Formats: sequence, C-alpha cells, structure tokens
Amino acid sequence: MSDEPILLTPGPLTTHPDTRRAMLRDWGSRDPAFIALTAEMRQRLLAVANGAASHVAVPVQGSGTFIVEAAIATLVAPGQKLLVLANGAYGERMVAIARRMGREVAALRWPEDRPVEPARVAAALRADPAVTHVALVHCETTTGILNPLAETAAVVAEAGRRFLLDAMSSFGALALDLGAVPVTAVLASSNKCLEGVPGIGFALVAKDALEGAEGNSPSTSLDLHAQWRGFEKDGQWRFTPPVQVVAALVEALRRLEAEGGPAARRARYQANFDTLQAGMRRLGFALYLDEAVQAPIIATFRMPADGSLAFRPFYEALAARGFLIYPGKLTQGESFRIGCIGAIGPEVFERLLRAVEAVLAAG
Amino acid sequence: MSDEPILLTPGPLTTHPDTRRAMLRDWGSRDPAFIALTAEMRQRLLAVANGAASHVAVPVQGSGTFIVEAAIATLVAPGQKLLVLANGAYGERMVAIARRMGREVAALRWPEDRPVEPARVAAALRADPAVTHVALVHCETTTGILNPLAETAAVVAEAGRRFLLDAMSSFGALALDLGAVPVTAVLASSNKCLEGVPGIGFALVAKDALEGAEGNSPSTSLDLHAQWRGFEKDGQWRFTPPVQVVAALVEALRRLEAEGGPAARRARYQANFDTLQAGMRRLGFALYLDEAVQAPIIATFRMPADGSLAFRPFYEALAARGFLIYPGKLTQGESFRIGCIGAIGPEVFERLLRAVEAVLAAG
Ligand SMILES: Cc1ncc(COP(=O)(O)O)c(C=O)c1O
Ligand SMILES: Cc1ncc(COP(=O)(O)O)c(C=O)c1O
Repeated sequence: MSDEPILLTPGPLTTHPDTRRAMLRDWGSRDPAFIALTAEMRQRLLAVANGAASHVAVPVQGSGTFIVEAAIATLVAPGQKLLVLANGAYGERMVAIARRMGREVAALRWPEDRPVEPARVAAALRADPAVTHVALVHCETTTGILNPLAETAAVVAEAGRRFLLDAMSSFGALALDLGAVPVTAVLASSNKCLEGVPGIGFALVAKDALEGAEGNSPSTSLDLHAQWRGFEKDGQWRFTPPVQVVAALVEALRRLEAEGGPAARRARYQANFDTLQAGMRRLGFALYLDEAVQAPIIATFRMPADGSLAFRPFYEALAARGFLIYPGKLTQGESFRIGCIGAIGPEVFERLLRAVEAVLAAG
Repeated sequence: MSDEPILLTPGPLTTHPDTRRAMLRDWGSRDPAFIALTAEMRQRLLAVANGAASHVAVPVQGSGTFIVEAAIATLVAPGQKLLVLANGAYGERMVAIARRMGREVAALRWPEDRPVEPARVAAALRADPAVTHVALVHCETTTGILNPLAETAAVVAEAGRRFLLDAMSSFGALALDLGAVPVTAVLASSNKCLEGVPGIGFALVAKDALEGAEGNSPSTSLDLHAQWRGFEKDGQWRFTPPVQVVAALVEALRRLEAEGGPAARRARYQANFDTLQAGMRRLGFALYLDEAVQAPIIATFRMPADGSLAFRPFYEALAARGFLIYPGKLTQGESFRIGCIGAIGPEVFERLLRAVEAVLAAG
C-alpha cells in the first residue's frame, strides 16, 4: 500500500505486511488452537532472552505502561521499597506509578544525557537497606540513551536486591541473556523491537519471585501472579485477550527467529542508525547524545540553534513525503526524534534523507 | 477463508471481513490521521447511546475487566461505598475488584436464573445510607439473563446514588438512551455486540461525575479521569494505543450505523436467537432460563439430564464441523452456551442446527 506512511517512531512502528495479515482471522479465545498460539507466544518470548530455565512469560492486555504497573504492583509487596534509577521520562513514570499505588519509592537521578552509574547505585543501596527492589530503563526512549545493564544488574544482585528492567524499547534487538544477567523481571511490549502491533505488554519474571507474590497487587487486572496462575491452569487468558494482536505477535516472533534473532536485528537497526546519523550530520543536524551512550533504537536530534526550523511544519512536510517522525521529549531544548526500529532497512533512511534535504531546500 | 471457524461465543466473536481488513495498515499514534480516527471512535461510541450531551467516551487499552476496574477505581472515591447487584460471575467479579482495591463494597445477590429486583434495591438503599454507588450487569453473560435496566436506574437515581452499568455484552444491541435513563457510567468493550476485535474497553461517563474524580484511582493505567484529560488536551492517548484495534472498531461502528443502529442489530440477534432456540428445542435441548428474562445475546442450554452428552466431545465434534460453542459458567449443573452475536445471521444457525443434529446422530 504505497500511500501508507513509514513510521519512524518508537512504536507503534512499521510492521511487516505478513505480521498485519496474521490479523485477518477470528480466533475463539478458549479454543485449543488459540491456546496453542498463546503457548507459542509465551515460549518464544522467553527464548528471545534465554529465560526458559529460570523465568516465565506473563503477557497482559494493554500497553507497556500497564505491564510496568503490573510488575511493580505484583513484585514490590506493601512494606517493601522501590528505588528507580531515572534519566528520562520512563524512569519518572515508574516513580509516579509506584507513588500513586502507595508503594514506598525513591529515585536516583541523572541528567537526560548521562547514563546511570552503577557505582552510585551501589552506594545508594549501601546507604538505604530498606530498598528491596531496583528499577532501570534499559534504553531510555526519552533520548535514546543506553543504560549499562550488565553492570547495574551485577551491583543490584551483589547487594541482594531484586531488579526490574524496563526493556520496552530494547527487547528483541539488544541482547539479553537471563542465564547470565540477574534480572528479576524484564518488561516489554509487542510493538517495539519485536515488530508486532500494539496491544500486549509482557513480563519475563523469575519463577521464584513470582511464586511468592500472590495477593500483592491491589489490582485485579494488573496482577502478574494471578495472570500467570491462569495460564498455568488451562493455558487460557483470565480475561478476553486481543486475539489478533496475539496472532500478529506470534508471526512477528517467527520472523525475528527467521531474521537471525536479536543479533541480526540489532545489526539491521545499527545500519539504519548509521545511515541516518551520517546523512543528518551532512545536512547539519547534531545528535543530542554522545555517540558512546547512544543505542541504535531511536535518535534525538537538536533543532537548528538559529531557529530556522519549527517542529510542526517540518513534521508536516515530511509526512507529506510519506515519513512520520516523532516529537522530542527533552525537558530542555527543542528537538525531534527519529526511530530506527521497525520492519525497515537502510534504504528507507536513504529515502528519508533525500526527503529531509528536499524539505530544507524548499523551506 | 472457508477453513475458519464460526465463533458462537460471547466474544471474541465472528467479525466482518471488512472489520478485520481495517487492521491491515500501520498508524502513527501521534499523527493527525490517527487523532482523527480516535475522535471518530469516541464520538460514535457516545452516539450509540445518545450520550453526547451529558457523557464523554473514555476508551482504555485492555479487556472489559480493565474498564470495569478503571471505573470503580476512578468513580468510587476512597471512603465511598459500592453496592453490587449480583446474579452471576460478572457481578461477583465487580465485588472482587472493589475489595482487592480496598474500596468498601457490599453485594445484593439473586440466584443465577432470577433477574435483579428493583424493589429490593430500593429497600437496600434505604437501609444503607453509606452506599454511594450501585453497580448492575445489564446482560449477565454467565447465563444470558437480562436485568431490568430502566427500573433499576430509576430506583438508584431516586435514592440519589450514582449508577455504574456493566453493559459489556449488551452495548450496541440492547437500546440504551442516556438522555432518558440515568446512568453515571456505561462500561463495555470493542469485541461484543459492536462486533469489533478485542483490545479496548471504554466507559461513557457523565461529565459531572468525571470532573470530580481526579486523583481517586490508585492506578496510573486504569484512571478514567487522567485518560480523559489526555484526550481533551491533544486528542492523543496517554499511552500507546492498539492502533489496529481502534481502526477495526471504527470500521465496526460505521457498519453498525449502516445496519440501522442498535435496533436493527437487536432484530438480527433476535432472529439468530429464535432460530437457535426453536431448533435446539426440536433437538431436545432445554433453555436454562425462563424466556421472559432471556436476552437475545447468549443462550445457556442444559446438558441432557441422562448424561448421554459430555461437553468436551460435543465441543470437538462441532468444532470439526466449523462451529465453536462456549462452555457453561453456571455454579450448579452441566450446561453449555451459544452466542447469538457477531457478524452472522440466522442462516448460520440453521447450519449449526444441522451440525448439532449430525453430531447427535453420530454419537
Ligand atoms: C522505555 C519505555 N517504557 C515504557 C513505555 C510505555 O509504553 P506504552 O506507551 O506502551 O504504555 C515506553 C513507550 O514508549 C518506553 O519507551
Ligand atoms: C458482562 C460482562 N462483564 C465483564 C466481562 C469481562 O470482559 P473481558 O473478558 O473482556 O475482561 C464480560 C466478558 O465476557 C462480560 O460478559
């Protein structure tokens, strides 16, 4: 469908036509065929992170925020305390979620352009023995910054605390080996690097942590323990699942395997990013982040300092040429973001760069 | 696709191919085109119940249970008290949701085959002035029973209390005029009588009730007030929406209008039900409910008393012939359910009856 825009966003993003076509049928949610589809989805999600030996996959209806909330509600028991490592909007959202729910929560903060520092985390844990859980955003979509996962996980494990990882915008592309990196719960959704359509969040939760979590959640809908028990009982979802979204995610997971898994996907996204960044630099756009801390997922560019370009007309001119970019989310300074993820390759970014060039020339 | 089963369930159900085809494209969730789609969806949902003058439509990602929980969390403030009128599993679920959340809740119960009695409700409200909100399930999908909406709403309004209506399995087919019947919040989902695909719940909430509800919900995700404010601000969803599910729902809502609205849809479902019931009676199956209290949505049939039929082989034999029926949910006695809703007409039920007859003959 040539009149369809290319989505250069952190999701919903451009999916493969086969993934969308998987939504063309109806499924009975209690039928053995759909139970098998759900089982395949759960098994494939675990396999992406090598978690089958230690973790279980618990999908929940809704968006990524829902699964983050479900994980905090289920895994941080009343009376326990969460420490959020925050350098962007999604870390701050975890703080807000925990606070609203009435859980004790503290934040350790860094500027948006600086990665989390494991040594500061270690010190904070030594200083506050009440902290039982630590939460990190792997790739902070606010800027596209990559936080040091393995080092932070090691520090948290060393201190004997539980570790929650918001891997929303990294899962499926940035390697994650649950056999090697100690993570209590990995949280992600169907519609980012897995290249499915939106409608499902999921948690990969360490079995031992989940087993002890019965009754913790104040929410019936957002309860990972009850949801898990439901799947264990009869393979069915407790509440009506978005059957077409499940079918699309299973197709997307099969495609991920066929592509060569997260390593191959990361290589494609890196090629997208490299093409984009080199071209944008040529056109006069500076990357917001230092390249050393930039994940190949989403790139934040500063608006030209001379004020010659405003987001809205720039967006519209690119949209008219078939490309949807994304607004910036920095707390300071004008910016925009371009996602490097989705079922697209470097040739799409070459076309985007020609479009940007044309827009600048016309402006 | 002729190898696809017909879903004779309370949803997810058989949708129209055009509704599914609406999912074949990607949408940028912050793009003006998708903002317009969301606005159309919200406006059409209100129009189905004539609510534009008094209510606002607040969709939430997830299943029907999520919207029920969001409504209780947002509208029943801490310190207030909910009275649930229960004659089936979905009434009981509301009690469980409120209790888990820590809201004060009481239940007034009837047997599963008896409708709610407004006079008893009036007496209960006189006896307990602490009750601020009353909740009713319009069509209890547990059995298919129709509860007396207008009479109950009148009693609740008379007593000066707020009224929450779980219209999950009636919305779009059983008439509801918010200009005439006093309902604080109507709760339903995309995948039942609206004939969309699952993934969205929504509430039609009286504006005056919603305006005062800021900060009530302990949940960030399940907060109707914050969700509403998000739509009011920029037309966008607060958190990533299931864009394809939205597109399918808009297509389904356009189809509902083209069919002639809820009255026409109810007539088709009634024809489905009548065909089904007459045929099943001929084949020896008794309807569980008295016909006077039966909604034309889902029919519960008793298993033959002689034990000659078990659900599992009966299900499988019908599935092999292309029809998926639904297990019973009665607390007492063996039963099964057959949904009369979805993008299907009486001819499908004629075919089903021939299949049932063949299965009985073969058994
Ligand atoms: C890192 C991160 N966490 C959480 C979320 C929230 O996900 P959703 O918008 O699906 O609720 C996002 C969304 O972009 C994200 O990038
Ligand atoms: C009356 C009623 N309420 C609530 C629900 C819960 O909806 P869901 O399964 O989408 O969570 C249902 C589902 O069948 C229902 O019929």
